Amino acid sequence: MSAAVLCIGTELTRGEIVNTNASWLAEMLTDRGGEVGAIEAIADDRALIVETLHRLSARHLVIVCTGGLGPTTDDITSECVAQVLGVPLRRDDASLDAIRARMEKFGRVMADSNQKQADFPEGARVLQNRKGTAPGFQVGLGHAQAFFMPGVPREMKTMFVEQVAPALAPFVQGQMFQVRLKTFGMTESAVNDRLAGIEAAHAVTLAYRAHFPEIEVKVLARGDGCRERARAAADAVIDRLGPDVVYGEGDVTFAEQLGKLLVERKLTLAVAESCTGGGVGRLLTERSGSSDFFLGGVISYANRVKEQLVGVPAALLAEHGAVSAPVARAMAEGALRVLGADVALALTGVAGPTGGTPDKPVGLVHFAVASRAGTSDRQMVFPGTRTQVRDLAAFAGLSLVRKVVLHGHDA
Amino acid sequence: MSAAVLCIGTELTRGEIVNTNASWLAEMLTDRGGEVGAIEAIADDRALIVETLHRLSARHLVIVCTGGLGPTTDDITSECVAQVLGVPLRRDDASLDAIRARMEKFGRVMADSNQKQADFPEGARVLQNRKGTAPGFQVGLGHAQAFFMPGVPREMKTMFVEQVAPALAPFVQGQMFQVRLKTFGMTESAVNDRLAGIEAAHAVTLAYRAHFPEIEVKVLARGDGCRERARAAADAVIDRLGPDVVYGEGDVTFAEQLGKLLVERKLTLAVAESCTGGGVGRLLTERSGSSDFFLGGVISYANRVKEQLVGVPAALLAEHGAVSAPVARAMAEGALRVLGADVALALTGVAGPTGGTPDKPVGLVHFAVASRAGTSDRQMVFPGTRTQVRDLAAFAGLSLVRKVVLHGHDA
Repeated sequence: MSAAVLCIGTELTRGEIVNTNASWLAEMLTDRGGEVGAIEAIADDRALIVETLHRLSARHLVIVCTGGLGPTTDDITSECVAQVLGVPLRRDDASLDAIRARMEKFGRVMADSNQKQADFPEGARVLQNRKGTAPGFQVGLGHAQAFFMPGVPREMKTMFVEQVAPALAPFVQGQMFQVRLKTFGMTESAVNDRLAGIEAAHAVTLAYRAHFPEIEVKVLARGDGCRERARAAADAVIDRLGPDVVYGEGDVTFAEQLGKLLVERKLTLAVAESCTGGGVGRLLTERSGSSDFFLGGVISYANRVKEQLVGVPAALLAEHGAVSAPVARAMAEGALRVLGADVALALTGVAGPTGGTPDKPVGLVHFAVASRAGTSDRQMVFPGTRTQVRDLAAFAGLSLVRKVVLHGHDA
Repeated sequence: MSAAVLCIGTELTRGEIVNTNASWLAEMLTDRGGEVGAIEAIADDRALIVETLHRLSARHLVIVCTGGLGPTTDDITSECVAQVLGVPLRRDDASLDAIRARMEKFGRVMADSNQKQADFPEGARVLQNRKGTAPGFQVGLGHAQAFFMPGVPREMKTMFVEQVAPALAPFVQGQMFQVRLKTFGMTESAVNDRLAGIEAAHAVTLAYRAHFPEIEVKVLARGDGCRERARAAADAVIDRLGPDVVYGEGDVTFAEQLGKLLVERKLTLAVAESCTGGGVGRLLTERSGSSDFFLGGVISYANRVKEQLVGVPAALLAEHGAVSAPVARAMAEGALRVLGADVALALTGVAGPTGGTPDKPVGLVHFAVASRAGTSDRQMVFPGTRTQVRDLAAFAGLSLVRKVVLHGHDA
């Protein structure tokens, strides 16, 4: 299934927003067996839209398009498609009623400009918009099927999943099955090297999606026995990378998986954060349900707060400095005690870009995990910007909690 | 200056990464007076790359291209450009030495595969890579100037700013000047409506860049007196939106501006976070220098922590519930006292997607700001996903701190 993604909107070609729709659609199409040759973003320009549709429809079986379906004068996608097809626009009364009803529901009166959102090229199949005003549509364009959707990500994604994806089924040859493995702790090139040979051995395709600092490994099998092959290959991936790197499957987060483990073990977690400034707590509470295992913590940014809230001795701070293993240990033990948690994680580091010294360079982070059974500590030096150092440190801290919960303090 | 952005790489067309390079380059070109008609991402496919370069060079004066300059066999950009030009590749000894020296510096030995990174189409101008291995290059392609850069964002951005942008100067007609205003608190369409008429009155162009939950307003003036016109128009924008919405100019963050204000007033800040889980602390410490005003805080996720660490009375929690104005006030007053801060911000809310009730719906957040002079509270209901509610709440909380610092508790 040769496919193209076309995103229409001058806000894209001026760089006013990052085109997350394009990568999302490319991933969805690839996951469904599509071979996406091109992703194009073009300005709201009639000649350019018409010419691009002609060109893409001559070479792809599927075109998925977003944008230009709004009520304003620069929204001209439907007109351009009608021009390419050589057909008139026709008003769809059902769509008009739906637009009016939706606006009334939100206490707004339908403006004249909204009426054109119910106009479609003659013969088009209307795609309803459950999340917004502008409906989409599907037409045959040359030998391609073309799908036009609004640019608002939430509206587009719902429409794609519910109405476009099912219409793509006839283009997909045979069965396919995919397993998505979430990993943390290795770079993409290291993961790639470690997995050499798995594609051939199991007749699968491996793909990667980077979502800093995580790498998702996607194992795709096609044809007969695809489910079993994908599973066997996924197990081989887990075996090669190890269970400390592959932390879960499907739509799970690292913090969520750690939370499940803590809930299973009936353990509560607290944090004492310095260089991450609250970033670990934010990660832990990203998904709902985190109150089942996360009590809270202390952002002990100033040294005085390290002393007052988690009882780090002033002498320890004076002797070793705030970024040191003894202070990390005292922070973790203090958080354990003060919050009455079963496990406590502490982080203190030099996030940069300033503040580094030869002894304590930018990127150095000391971690400690305390429990009733003892305290572990570790130090790491992370590369990158301040944001990257902080994000890596937050993940590495949670990773250390996981190791201690699974393997104890001696591991 | 008609321009196109071309990004080469199958990782893009498979949706494995979001193409942030494209929007960054589009913005840079637009800021320099470019009219970006198209942004294309294509797979690592020789025929497709050659044909796309032919097509884009026939219609644009400037082509800015990323990707395909690495050492592996699927990195074929240089070969394809040579093919389009009908010239051979030539090895550049200076580049080869630079690649070898860089790899040795990082303790690596240059592999044979790296040698091809020193091969360029005959006649190309080499663009040095200060941040990585792969050099870029510039060639004339039809009547276009085409610039080829690596896909790694940090390498690409440095190369663009230092070597590509200066080479674009001859394409820009006349002078131009831009003022960037950072705003928070209004939607893009509301900002747009409020600024109607400013473009015509001051002969400037307004553009927007959304970076949730902020909107950047860019005021661009060209030609004679552009500096003065841009300034006058920017002042008109500030006047229309108000200083509480326009919080700064240029490359500043909301937290950083608040920090400057606090440092000026010699005030320290503490936080007590519930629904944001540490997100406010993370925002406050995003830039270095935050220790000048931010002491730290308490992530009081569990009710017990609200009682133990910031002294919220159990009776208050029982009577009003954790998400209530009295509890927010007690959290802020407790954080002020416990951390010894001059100002303390507290947030408690229902981030969702579960946990909402008719009285306390998903999105409801109670805020309080305490200082020696008293305590203010406020409640807001935010739309969107759990992540959006939390991000909006963190910004709105900092916004409330700013108001209290500027105008006191009665405003």
